[in-house]
Amino acid sequence: MPYLLQVDFDMDGPFGDAMVQAFSGLAHSINQEPGMIWKIWTEAAAQGQAGGVYLFDTHANAESYLQMHSARLLQAGVRNLRSRIFEVNEALSAINHGPVQAG
Amino acid sequence: MPYLLQVDFDMDGPFGDAMVQAFSGLAHSINQEPGMIWKIWTEAAAQGQAGGVYLFDTHANAESYLQMHSARLLQAGVRNLRSRIFEVNEALSAINHGPVQAG
Repeated sequence: MPYLLQVDFDMDGPFGDAMVQAFSGLAHSINQEPGMIWKIWTEAAAQGQAGGVYLFDTHANAESYLQMHSARLLQAGVRNLRSRIFEVNEALSAINHGPVQAG
Repeated sequence: MPYLLQVDFDMDGPFGDAMVQAFSGLAHSINQEPGMIWKIWTEAAAQGQAGGVYLFDTHANAESYLQMHSARLLQAGVRNLRSRIFEVNEALSAINHGPVQAG
């Protein structure tokens, strides 16, 4: 059963193209994290907010990643970090074309 | 450019299979909402929490849906409703296989 991790926080940037330049190396490294299926990178420059929504294969892998990533984000200076790990309701998500298939 | 809407809240259920029974009609109706590309239904029964993560085609469509859906959720008795609308960083999401293509 897939699990969704959502993380968001306040930060001063970079956003947009500068965010791509700053974090593309990090993005590639995230592909190596155990059980990580996909990540959507989110940002709201006008509000000074950013985050990520991830699909993981198990709750344990989502939790392990969150512990590591939270520490990394806080060290980088983000504020008001908020995270949630949810089970995916696969039957309802299937009705709405939710992309929750592993692999 | 796609926009991600994330919504979560406290509720007493239903969860799991009972949630599917209760909300499959609603799920089908959500497919008719303007600009809705997909929705992932989320739940955490042990924490008494649930929510949804959506991809929309425009900020305006995400905002219109959120207004309508928030009112519906509050009327249904959910508590501590929290919502965010984010731009998707497409280049970083592409590196991490994020499913953010329209259609």
